[in-house]
Amino acid sequence: MKETSRGRVYLVGAGPGDPELLTLRAARLLREADTVVHDRLIHPGVLEHARPHARLIYVGKEGGGDSVHQEDIHAVLIAQARLGRAVVRLKGGDPFVFGRGAEEALALEAAGISYEVVPGLSAGIAVPASAAIPVTHRDLSGEVTFATAFRAGGAPDWSFLARAQTLVLFMAGQRLEETTTALISAGRAATIPAALVEAGTWEHQRVVEATLGDVARQARQAGLGSPALLVVGEVVSLRARLASLTARR
Amino acid sequence: MKETSRGRVYLVGAGPGDPELLTLRAARLLREADTVVHDRLIHPGVLEHARPHARLIYVGKEGGGDSVHQEDIHAVLIAQARLGRAVVRLKGGDPFVFGRGAEEALALEAAGISYEVVPGLSAGIAVPASAAIPVTHRDLSGEVTFATAFRAGGAPDWSFLARAQTLVLFMAGQRLEETTTALISAGRAATIPAALVEAGTWEHQRVVEATLGDVARQARQAGLGSPALLVVGEVVSLRARLASLTARR
Repeated sequence: MKETSRGRVYLVGAGPGDPELLTLRAARLLREADTVVHDRLIHPGVLEHARPHARLIYVGKEGGGDSVHQEDIHAVLIAQARLGRAVVRLKGGDPFVFGRGAEEALALEAAGISYEVVPGLSAGIAVPASAAIPVTHRDLSGEVTFATAFRAGGAPDWSFLARAQTLVLFMAGQRLEETTTALISAGRAATIPAALVEAGTWEHQRVVEATLGDVARQARQAGLGSPALLVVGEVVSLRARLASLTARR
Repeated sequence: MKETSRGRVYLVGAGPGDPELLTLRAARLLREADTVVHDRLIHPGVLEHARPHARLIYVGKEGGGDSVHQEDIHAVLIAQARLGRAVVRLKGGDPFVFGRGAEEALALEAAGISYEVVPGLSAGIAVPASAAIPVTHRDLSGEVTFATAFRAGGAPDWSFLARAQTLVLFMAGQRLEETTTALISAGRAATIPAALVEAGTWEHQRVVEATLGDVARQARQAGLGSPALLVVGEVVSLRARLASLTARR
């Protein structure tokens, strides 16, 4: 009770898009929240769980830019909690998978704010699944690696990523050509199957399936943009065999 | 309507344990199911969503053995669907992450059975989170690899896994010493932080945090067993800094 009276922040994963992929806990916390602080890529159907009088604060970053600084988000969370409010910090996917949730948790910890982390469905698994791509398969892939194509503090270790049986690259919609070229230069075969999934699990989801060497060209031709996720590996070939799942998209 | 009348199988991820980490869709499908076919590691609170008169069929594999053959599970799913039933095939974690969901989907596809895949929270993300370990962090890890320590058709590529910034090994409770030794032999520093999480997100969750070189000994001393997940990487060190999260377990 003491904790409630002085406010608390819930770092909640909203999943990849589709509102029914929210967890029961996330839905309950949204129903109970006084304040909801949310990103750009949150489906409107998810926000509908919030009470009509809950305060919604939008802190989205447009197009990968830093229109809202991370430190400002921390300040909002801390200020709302100090007003004694139950604050849901709603993040796309899972808070701890490229979500900067760890930074927000550390900031709350440092400020002495009570908080809790509620995992959500990561796009890294749910988005390939919605395109009929299992990220692991007994015969084809015994591991899966999630990474981002671009990151603070330099390029990723392409020679490592080129060896991943299944590689899932987040934020792959921009500079896709550069990404696929880097993987091929680092040793990944240009003939390996690859798929780019735009807006995975959303109503307007689109998929381009090709080889690693050709996926950037085909995606450009089809006009695919952000947000998108790139899947590279033999598992992509299962997509054709899981025809019923594919037909539904 | 036609599809319903001839039965349908939903391959549903139940998440890592905690019943509130179920998705809204999984809960709805359980409420609507005529038959629920489930594994061993499904929390009783998850099964409570099923209707009182739903038929529950247990197909769990004890201790990693093959007490129920995969082909028999396929046969059960196909037979139940052909009786015109709505069948929920409930799997721990996510169906496509080491869950053999791809094999089940392919078997249903081959049998001409209508099916759908409903992703669930993977233990690979939610279990480290419940032990206050973010699998990625802006400064410490730009990628995360999920793998199993043992697999059909030979050993994993330890030299690849030894290079993962964050490595999450499923089914790590058995032969942990062998696993950590293999990683160190393949070049991973024995001093890197590592944590073994037993029964992650369940009420009786236990965590041993140590170095990669010492985690097997400490886990044995503490009596940790299966199911367990091993996390290796600098991100494990965040656990101490996320003290509030740790205190709650």
